[in-house]
Amino acid sequence: MQSLPTEATCLQRVAASFERQAVMRTMGIRLGKVAAGQVDLHMAHHPDLTQQHGFLHAGVLSTALDSACGYAAFSLMPPQAAVLTIEFKINLLAPARGPSFRFEGRVTKRGRTISVVDGQAFQITDGSPETLIASMSATVMTVLGRDAIQQ
Amino acid sequence: MQSLPTEATCLQRVAASFERQAVMRTMGIRLGKVAAGQVDLHMAHHPDLTQQHGFLHAGVLSTALDSACGYAAFSLMPPQAAVLTIEFKINLLAPARGPSFRFEGRVTKRGRTISVVDGQAFQITDGSPETLIASMSATVMTVLGRDAIQQ
Amino acid sequence: MQSLPTEATCLQRVAASFERQAVMRTMGIRLGKVAAGQVDLHMAHHPDLTQQHGFLHAGVLSTALDSACGYAAFSLMPPQAAVLTIEFKINLLAPARGPSFRFEGRVTKRGRTISVVDGQAFQITDGSPETLIASMSATVMTVLGRDAIQQ
Amino acid sequence: MQSLPTEATCLQRVAASFERQAVMRTMGIRLGKVAAGQVDLHMAHHPDLTQQHGFLHAGVLSTALDSACGYAAFSLMPPQAAVLTIEFKINLLAPARGPSFRFEGRVTKRGRTISVVDGQAFQITDGSPETLIASMSATVMTVLGRDAIQQ
Repeated sequence: MQSLPTEATCLQRVAASFERQAVMRTMGIRLGKVAAGQVDLHMAHHPDLTQQHGFLHAGVLSTALDSACGYAAFSLMPPQAAVLTIEFKINLLAPARGPSFRFEGRVTKRGRTISVVDGQAFQITDGSPETLIASMSATVMTVLGRDAIQQ
Repeated sequence: MQSLPTEATCLQRVAASFERQAVMRTMGIRLGKVAAGQVDLHMAHHPDLTQQHGFLHAGVLSTALDSACGYAAFSLMPPQAAVLTIEFKINLLAPARGPSFRFEGRVTKRGRTISVVDGQAFQITDGSPETLIASMSATVMTVLGRDAIQQ
Repeated sequence: MQSLPTEATCLQRVAASFERQAVMRTMGIRLGKVAAGQVDLHMAHHPDLTQQHGFLHAGVLSTALDSACGYAAFSLMPPQAAVLTIEFKINLLAPARGPSFRFEGRVTKRGRTISVVDGQAFQITDGSPETLIASMSATVMTVLGRDAIQQ
Repeated sequence: MQSLPTEATCLQRVAASFERQAVMRTMGIRLGKVAAGQVDLHMAHHPDLTQQHGFLHAGVLSTALDSACGYAAFSLMPPQAAVLTIEFKINLLAPARGPSFRFEGRVTKRGRTISVVDGQAFQITDGSPETLIASMSATVMTVLGRDAIQQ
């Protein structure tokens, strides 16, 4: 049975790595709530990130969801580990109109080497409940030792 | 048996829609070769689009591959149709170091409503052969009539 | 806003189609609880359905989960519709030892043409809580009219 | 650079494990051509393995494709390794009418721990060319040491 790190430890480690993901700044994606095995990210709709109909591009949703899922798994990994996404699948459920979005990653299965994480993207509109607009299923790897450094 | 549009028709329609994907400009993704059921995109590595180890973020690869796959399917659709990605899965095979990348989308199964498209991302380094760094399997929908307009 | 069929109607329609899936009898998969957008299936471990280590083969889990997901979506479809699985992804989380299993399909997004359904496979051992051993994300199509008949 | 085992070695190791997959006998799936990183399987349509329209159930196609993909990766693994499917995605492209089928698994990326394998299912009808009816993308793990034994 693996123990869970404290919330403060999770936040510290996730925040330190998140800061180094330059694409998060570029897309205006911000770190939200962090707990053991759980990470929330937030962003606003931006016209520079849209597809041909003016909605956020599926790849932008993927960027936020992949980071939410990867960091949810990372929050449970040993101190020296690096995190590597092996694969993910995303279903696009509704147009990403905005004005803002919340992305959550939740670890479904924590493994020594392989973890499986589920992600959900929600659209936030003033005065309405959040609506689910995309769901992700991701496979994430814990990389240790020499392999972690090489990355 | 559905007929194939000419290469000139494919290019014209794909280019017109591609121009309206603002995120392509933002990421520096350019349209390459277009043929019936086949679309190539190109981009360079950029530090603003990286994850914590300095490689292109998986979501950026997804953005380019999703557009390559979607437009490969779109190139075969009727003139008034809109294209909608239902889902995709991506496997990340190697770090996306650059300096540059080629993305290809190839239609595997063309259907009236649903098409299945395979995508591959290649890394291009001077003096070396291209190396495969990611593969995508995407399900794309042809949207017609009222639904196409609403989008 | 689409209305929900009654539970009795769901059960009747799902059961009638389930009866015609010969592979369910072959594998000893039985229909459990059925509600609008929700279907449970049950089966026991059987040595004829195993892989090289004596666990249920991933394809057998896929068979049960695909039917659970497909019928969950089918339970919400119009009376004359047929159901067609377009694609699914499955993550295998733990060995399928048995002695018995429960599979559930839950509709995540109901669409006129495309529905997205999530499935979970649980292992049941006497005296222990159920454990999650596999998760599925499926895309299912509603087929109407001439296309439904041809199938 | 990892070396490739000889074709005879591949066949011997794959055949020995394949023999222990009881579900292959149950479904009448037979081992075909085996080479380094490549495995073919064959089967005939059988009414006991069908869904409600009389076609092979998607889970049956998944069973054959998962084994084809898993053994394609296994053929390249070290002698003491066990193979474990982490996840797969399958797209169903056309009804599986038969009368017979060929399944192929081809390793796309061979890794020390994680390999990615692509699979294709073909329908074989006398006098017609094979037609592609399903495609799979699978992630497979090499399991060594204590973990391999426990399985």
